[in-house]
Amino acid sequence: MTGTLHGVGVGPGDPELMTLKADRLIRAAKVIAYPTLAGAHSFARSIAAGSIAEGATEIVMDVPMTVARQPAQDAYDAGAAQIEDALRSGLDVVCLCEGDPFFYGSFMYLYARLSGEFTCQVVPGVTSMTASAAMTGMPLAARNEVLTVIPGPLEEAALEARIAGSDSLVIMKVGRHLPKICAVIERLGLLDQATYIERATLPAQVTLPLAQAPEKAPYFSMILITKGADPWL
Amino acid sequence: MTGTLHGVGVGPGDPELMTLKADRLIRAAKVIAYPTLAGAHSFARSIAAGSIAEGATEIVMDVPMTVARQPAQDAYDAGAAQIEDALRSGLDVVCLCEGDPFFYGSFMYLYARLSGEFTCQVVPGVTSMTASAAMTGMPLAARNEVLTVIPGPLEEAALEARIAGSDSLVIMKVGRHLPKICAVIERLGLLDQATYIERATLPAQVTLPLAQAPEKAPYFSMILITKGADPWL
Ligand SMILES: C[S@@+](CC[C@H](N)C(=O)[O-])C[C@H]1O[C@@H](n2cnc3c(N)ncnc32)[C@H](O)[C@@H]1O
Ligand SMILES: C[S@@+](CC[C@H](N)C(=O)[O-])C[C@H]1O[C@@H](n2cnc3c(N)ncnc32)[C@H](O)[C@@H]1O
Repeated sequence: MTGTLHGVGVGPGDPELMTLKADRLIRAAKVIAYPTLAGAHSFARSIAAGSIAEGATEIVMDVPMTVARQPAQDAYDAGAAQIEDALRSGLDVVCLCEGDPFFYGSFMYLYARLSGEFTCQVVPGVTSMTASAAMTGMPLAARNEVLTVIPGPLEEAALEARIAGSDSLVIMKVGRHLPKICAVIERLGLLDQATYIERATLPAQVTLPLAQAPEKAPYFSMILITKGADPWL
Repeated sequence: MTGTLHGVGVGPGDPELMTLKADRLIRAAKVIAYPTLAGAHSFARSIAAGSIAEGATEIVMDVPMTVARQPAQDAYDAGAAQIEDALRSGLDVVCLCEGDPFFYGSFMYLYARLSGEFTCQVVPGVTSMTASAAMTGMPLAARNEVLTVIPGPLEEAALEARIAGSDSLVIMKVGRHLPKICAVIERLGLLDQATYIERATLPAQVTLPLAQAPEKAPYFSMILITKGADPWL
């Protein structure tokens, strides 16, 4: 009997925002896996730390930050091979994913490699998007409003076209793209409606009107532009 | 001292997809509140049922299903008044919300009425959107893909324009709008890429290629059209 691969969302940062199911699976796991970015510590692992059993085996995929894709691909290939060994020996593997595994999550690269041959189960988690809305008191979308989720690394013209055509919107992966994103938002006259948030739900959380955002944004930051609730309904 | 209003997301259906925080707050709550639709039972309450303390007071807002908005407004006004009484008497109130409170959730109508005067805290939850992606094994969005969330009740032309301009997309609130939505998706040549899901994460869950969806969709249903993960990264 081969094991099952669980892709487990651990939520946006506050360990109490893990689901009961994530907590149960992580506590029971003999093998856990997670990626790290260019040798940095794993955010997903730090969220789940209190639930990881002593003595659990940890499979770490160190994903280099390069524009070229081959080195990242190699890291996932190597990680998938290690996970495969564990699954073949009959062990379940719990892969930790910050937020939700299928919402811009790296788990999908393992899923693509392993779900053809092994049983894979995905445990959805609280995304950083709704967590950021909750922390800033900004309802994302109601009734017939369209909500658009836009990655900040898009090139400027595409970013501008997407933002201009949206009702409520969320910009993910802000980080070093902040100046470009701000320029677009200002050009579209939306600066006053935009909110910046970094490290949502963590003690180090920062929320500011976008106009007052720091010059350098960390990787774990996003921007929300929403219409807010219509109080009359 | 007045009490705090907690808007608590209880996730998409499976009670184990509540967060640890939601579970803790609900267990401790002396007063809980939730809306019901036109006298039907409350989905949010059924998800949280196992965590509600015996003897907790329940504030039920019965929201009528009418095209006119006034009756719904009256229901939220009346509910807000009851919640206000509890808060003024020093009690905390936990308002249960299916999925996430600020992702097309009804909690925002109470938030709009009460957050000016009372301390309100929103506990984000797992949305039906990422839960549906997890259950169907369809990654929502990766890398620089834009994700669009579209409410099914939009009128046909708007729906078509939004769907045509999207990368990955999710259509919420399908229900009786299914035939209209299917017609648009077929016209755009996307029928083969669309997946239908109802009651995600519940024992009664149904997932089907959209082309095979039932003629009548329940309110708790959605449609996903995604690009899937690119396996080479
Ligand atoms: C690769 S995506 C992963 C998203 C994750 N799977 C989710 O469901 O939230 C990383 C991006 O998520 C956002 N993010 C994740 N955690 C965050 C947090 N606690 N506060 C603000 N943004 C966060 C940032 O925009 C970051 O660049
Ligand atoms: C008023 S919205 C509430 C969304 C909720 N706040 C959330 O975060 O998922 C109701 C819509 O959510 C979707 N929905 C909620 N629960 C669902 C489930 N378990 N399966 C499929 N769709 C669901 C349906 O599209 C439904 O019409």
